[in-house]
This record gives sequence, C-alpha cells and structure tokens, in this order.
Amino acid sequence: MSATGAFAVTEYRDRTARAQAAMAEQGLAALLLTTEPDIRYFTGFLTRFWESPTRPWFLVVPATGKPVAVIPAIGAHLMAQGWLDDIRTWASPDYEDDGVSLLAEALADCVPAGGTLGVPQGRETHLRMPLASWAALQTALPDRHFGSDAYILRDLRMVKSPAEIARIETACAIAGRAFARLPEIARGGRPLDAVFRDFQRLCLDEGADWVPYLAGGAGPGGYGDVISPATDTPLAAGDVLMLDTGLVHAGYFCDFDRNLSVGPPTAEVARAHERLIEATRAGFDAARPGATASDVFRSMASVVGETGVGRLGHGLGMQLTEPPSLIPADDTVLTPGMVLTLEPGITLGPGRILVHEEDIVIRETGAAWLSPPADRMEVLET
Amino acid sequence: MSATGAFAVTEYRDRTARAQAAMAEQGLAALLLTTEPDIRYFTGFLTRFWESPTRPWFLVVPATGKPVAVIPAIGAHLMAQGWLDDIRTWASPDYEDDGVSLLAEALADCVPAGGTLGVPQGRETHLRMPLASWAALQTALPDRHFGSDAYILRDLRMVKSPAEIARIETACAIAGRAFARLPEIARGGRPLDAVFRDFQRLCLDEGADWVPYLAGGAGPGGYGDVISPATDTPLAAGDVLMLDTGLVHAGYFCDFDRNLSVGPPTAEVARAHERLIEATRAGFDAARPGATASDVFRSMASVVGETGVGRLGHGLGMQLTEPPSLIPADDTVLTPGMVLTLEPGITLGPGRILVHEEDIVIRETGAAWLSPPADRMEVLET
Repeated sequence: MSATGAFAVTEYRDRTARAQAAMAEQGLAALLLTTEPDIRYFTGFLTRFWESPTRPWFLVVPATGKPVAVIPAIGAHLMAQGWLDDIRTWASPDYEDDGVSLLAEALADCVPAGGTLGVPQGRETHLRMPLASWAALQTALPDRHFGSDAYILRDLRMVKSPAEIARIETACAIAGRAFARLPEIARGGRPLDAVFRDFQRLCLDEGADWVPYLAGGAGPGGYGDVISPATDTPLAAGDVLMLDTGLVHAGYFCDFDRNLSVGPPTAEVARAHERLIEATRAGFDAARPGATASDVFRSMASVVGETGVGRLGHGLGMQLTEPPSLIPADDTVLTPGMVLTLEPGITLGPGRILVHEEDIVIRETGAAWLSPPADRMEVLET
Repeated sequence: MSATGAFAVTEYRDRTARAQAAMAEQGLAALLLTTEPDIRYFTGFLTRFWESPTRPWFLVVPATGKPVAVIPAIGAHLMAQGWLDDIRTWASPDYEDDGVSLLAEALADCVPAGGTLGVPQGRETHLRMPLASWAALQTALPDRHFGSDAYILRDLRMVKSPAEIARIETACAIAGRAFARLPEIARGGRPLDAVFRDFQRLCLDEGADWVPYLAGGAGPGGYGDVISPATDTPLAAGDVLMLDTGLVHAGYFCDFDRNLSVGPPTAEVARAHERLIEATRAGFDAARPGATASDVFRSMASVVGETGVGRLGHGLGMQLTEPPSLIPADDTVLTPGMVLTLEPGITLGPGRILVHEEDIVIRETGAAWLSPPADRMEVLET
C-alpha cells in the first residue's frame, strides 16, 4: 500500500479500461463523477475531508486516456500523489463560479458537440454538487447531452478486486477481535452509551483507522430498531444487546453485528437467535456464482418466515451499504468478487426485533466468510 | 436531553415557525428537504444510519402546521419518538418507486396547483436522492414549481440556539481535554497512523460520541496538506505534528486543531506559530455583531499576509463545515448565536504549511471562545 493508501497503478488503469469499454458500448463520451467512492474508485484519492460538505469535487473519465480531476486547490497536493496527470484546480469556495466553468471546459475537451456524458443517477446514487451549479453546467454546455451512466459505476464497483477484498477481510478481522472483547466492556449495569463509546475504542485498539458507523440497541428480549443512538439506560438482566459496526480499514468497510444476552437468554430469544444463525447459513449456501440476490433473499426468508425484517443483506465495500440488495426484486446475478452482507431479522413482538449480520465474498466455488461467523449467543455478566 | 438526543419540542416548533415566516415572505408553499442536517434541524432525528447511502429520506415543511416525514420504514420507530404527527413510510429500497409517489402525494397535499416548493440548491447544498427520482418527482407534479429555498435553511441554521451552542461547547471541551493528553501518545518514533488511532481513543475516552473527522499531518518544519490520511512514518525530531478533529457530542461538531513540535521548534516554526495565534486573536477581536465574515477574514489575513492559505474559517454546527466562509467574497453579517472557526494558515515553503484553528461563538458583546484557545506551541519528547 502506498503512503496515501492507494492501490497499485495497474488497478486504476484496469478499472479505467473496463469503464471505457462499457462507455463505448453505451455510446458515452465521458463519465462525470461527484461522490467520494466513485472518485476514489478511479483515483485512489482517500481522505476524510469529504466530511466537509462545502466544496464540490469532480472527476471526468474520458473515452480514452486517464481520468481528469477538477478539484478544489486544497486537494491538489494529495491528488498529485496518485496516478493522474491532468489535475485542474480552483480556489474553492468561489461564490461566483465554484468550479462550474472549469468543469465545463474539461467536459468540452472530452465530449464532442452532440456527444453524451454519463452521470450516475439511478438507485443509491446522488449528485454531490449544488443543483444550481448542475443547472449552470448544463447551460454552459448546451450542445452536450447529459445522460445516465447506465449503471456502469454500480456494475464495476459491485465486483471487488483481490486487493479490495483483502482490505474488507482485514476490516472484518479487526471488528471480529473487538467483538470478542465485548465482555470486557459490557455487562449488567453499564449504560448503553458507555458501551458504544468503549466499543469504538476497542475497534481502534484492534487496528481500525476509524469507526464511521456504530449502531445497536438493547432491551428486554429484543430491541426497538437498529438505527437509534445509544441512551444512557444501563444494561439489565434479560436484555439483548446488539452492536453493529461499520469500521474502516484503508478505506474499506466491514458491516456485521453481534447479539449478546445479559444473563442467560429466554428460550424465545435463544430460539430466535438460532434461527438467525440458521438463516445466515442458508444465505451462505445459496450465495453461489449464478444465483441471484433474490435467491439469497429467499433462502434466508424461508427460515425467518413471516417475521422477517425488510432487506436481508446488501453489498459492501468503500461504502457501508452498496448494491445489490437482498430483496425479492433484485435479480443481480452473483459473480466471483462480490462482497455481501447476510442480515436476517426476526420480529418477536411490538418493539422487539433481533437482527444478525455477517459478511461474505463470492468465490468461484461458492461463498466464503469474511467476518468470523457467530455460532452461538454470548452471555454477558448481569 | 431526550433519550433520542432531541431538544425540547419548543425548539422545533420555533424553528418551524421561523421557517414558515420566511417561506411566506418568499412565496413558498412548502420546503422539500433531503439531507441529514436539514431534516434533523426540524425533527431532532439523530442517527448514524445516514452512513448508508441506499435509501432516500424526505421532509416536507408546509406553510402551516408541523413538518411531514416521508421516510423508509426502517426509520419509523425512531422518528415516531419525536414531535411529528404525520410520518409516512414505505418499504425502501423499492426498485419500482423508491418513495417518489408517496412524496409526490405529500407535496400535493401541501402545495396548491400553481404553487412553488423550495429546495435547497445553492452553495454548500446537494440533493440527496437519485437524479432519476428527482426527474420522476417533477413529472408527477407538472403543475407545481420546483424553486430554490432562497437560502432559508442556510440563514436559519447559521444562527444557533443556546441549546445548540451548549452542545458545541461540550464537544469543544471534550476535544480540548483529548488534545491536552497528546503527550501521552505522541512522541518521536511513534508512527503517525498510530497517533491518529490513539487520538481518536482519547476523544472517546474524554466523552465523544464518535469521531467522524480526524485529519492532520507531520513533517520537518511543516506538513504538505491538511487532508491526507496518516502514513506509518514515525514522528522525528523537528517535525511539526498537527491534528485537526471534528468529534461529535449529541449530534454537534467541534472543529479545531493543535500544532505540536517534536523536540524544540526551529525559530522559523516558532515564529510562524506565534503569528497564527496572533492572527486567530485578530479574528476573535474582529468577530463582533455587525461585522461581516469578510471583515474577520481581513483581520486575520492582515497578520498572515501573502503566505495565507485559502479560506480562513467557516461556520460549524451539525456539520463539520457550514456557512459562512471567512473569505473576501462573503459579506454575511455576524449576529449573536453564530458559531465560527478561525483557521489561519501560513505557507513556509514548498510542501510546508502550518494551519491553526479555534472555535468561537458570537455574543451580543463580541466573540467568546468555545475551544480552549492555544497560546503556545507544545513540545513533544523526541
């Protein structure tokens, strides 16, 4: 890994070549990208500075040759350490023209009059620039067509390279070690917010670069949802504690959880947890090259049945959640290199759910675990 | 603070009333909001689940009455703990219609035919939904105008309430304590990435809920930029180490940094650091009600002079960086309740900059420190 966390240049060259082949098929003269993962995919540009929403960043992938970066000057030093040759900058924020003219020029260089540029605009995408700038850009280029990217980015990013999979695997291993240490910090009487804080410290201690995502819940015999912030309510005997982390290693996420019982679980909870493990294994078995995302959904849904909770898993990589979705409507065909979460859930009663999650990679021969699969419900001291 | 981290209901009622007064002035029948801070501003909906880009979330602020949430079902349990009455949900992701019809219905309820709805589309904004869904929404409502929000959201959010300021102050105090403990973890020979990791642990240890942002750098007599990820290069005598954190307490950021010298600083570095402190104080003195953002910029620029580095500060709150910008072009008039960072920088040579940052709040009588202001450069063991 380079000092900046980028992969070998061949990786970016290959990605660009694959994108350009797909662009040729779709009749696209260029791609215009605006989000962190899409830009990093072709450049290796890795920084937590995206946390600041102030400045827009642009990458243009032309029909041939290397991508062109059109970025705020504050990013020039870091971008120049990567493989790109053409890095155009402006002093952002510029209230008169925040990169729009510079971007229009770069696009005019790449897209002939009458040509079409592709912008991701389908499911799970957004345009990371002000709508007013987007309108100004289209006005500045009246004889270029602004079309969709025809899901080229989704299709490319959905299949991970060995180097990407290795990073996700490392992230999973870090989280696995942190989860194994949960009894150090979680027991009856400890407030949930203290457990959340301490668990993030364990993740860092075990090697996480940072912990962008931590969710969870705790409650008697189950929790109300999986997205609420932690309260200061102390854990109590009979609670099920769930922690779900998306920690990052070298720019790649893991995303899996653990359910623990404070004191011995009730028979109902123990049975539900067993079914979740069983559902996860069914998903694992179904997740083979040639199967679809909906096949994997159905394999898990058949175990959790009518009590199932929504989407039962998703892609994983530079983002915590990526395509595909394990839902009935997703007919994405699984291929080697895809990384998925298996995330079956069960509703036990009003305000009482249990959700389990593991991470897998699709190999030629079937699925392989990336997270260390849980086989039983750990019991915490009361 | 409620279990979900929300403020008292009166706070949301007041915000909504102020928005509605501004909407009436602008002739807007509703606001359509799609981003985390804009939605949280009116609802208190606080969750780290926004890390998942998969699902769109919508809030409609009508001309009178409470806002209407149009959100994925996964958020219903948490949103229902807030003050809203009208929460409409769908099972997202839905590949046929990911909330668009439901949103169109809600907008049709609020905006009469021929009426205009306002969407944030100016500087520092983006629309957090797929462009394809945005187009479908406009097609579904052909007799409604989709206009700008006339910077209503920016103007409202720029002035913080006492309850908001208290949270930012707590975040700053947490980071101040973590910075004070830096000598525990940073000294000559320690790799920068280990220092980054350990500093985040200190932040959590001192009470941060999480640490979304940490940037920094280290190098002999200065660093190359302020956005690069940490390398494993060990700190060495003569290095300047800078750490810049945006940690979060109850949904609100701090954003300030510290520069430390590994062993005694050179005269050049010591002098540069003194000038940065001097510039920060000049900014502090200039930051009074009635002054503009550009006045504060000029007061600091006059100290750092031609070696100044870009923008010299910005707003701060639910986001790491918010309007206004301390740049010559920003004529925002400062008013009590605004929270700003003062962030002067100096270029010492090629690839060698120093940036200092503190956080302040504007009071009736002038600025007050939120971060504990640094007055000298700490020296770390070599």
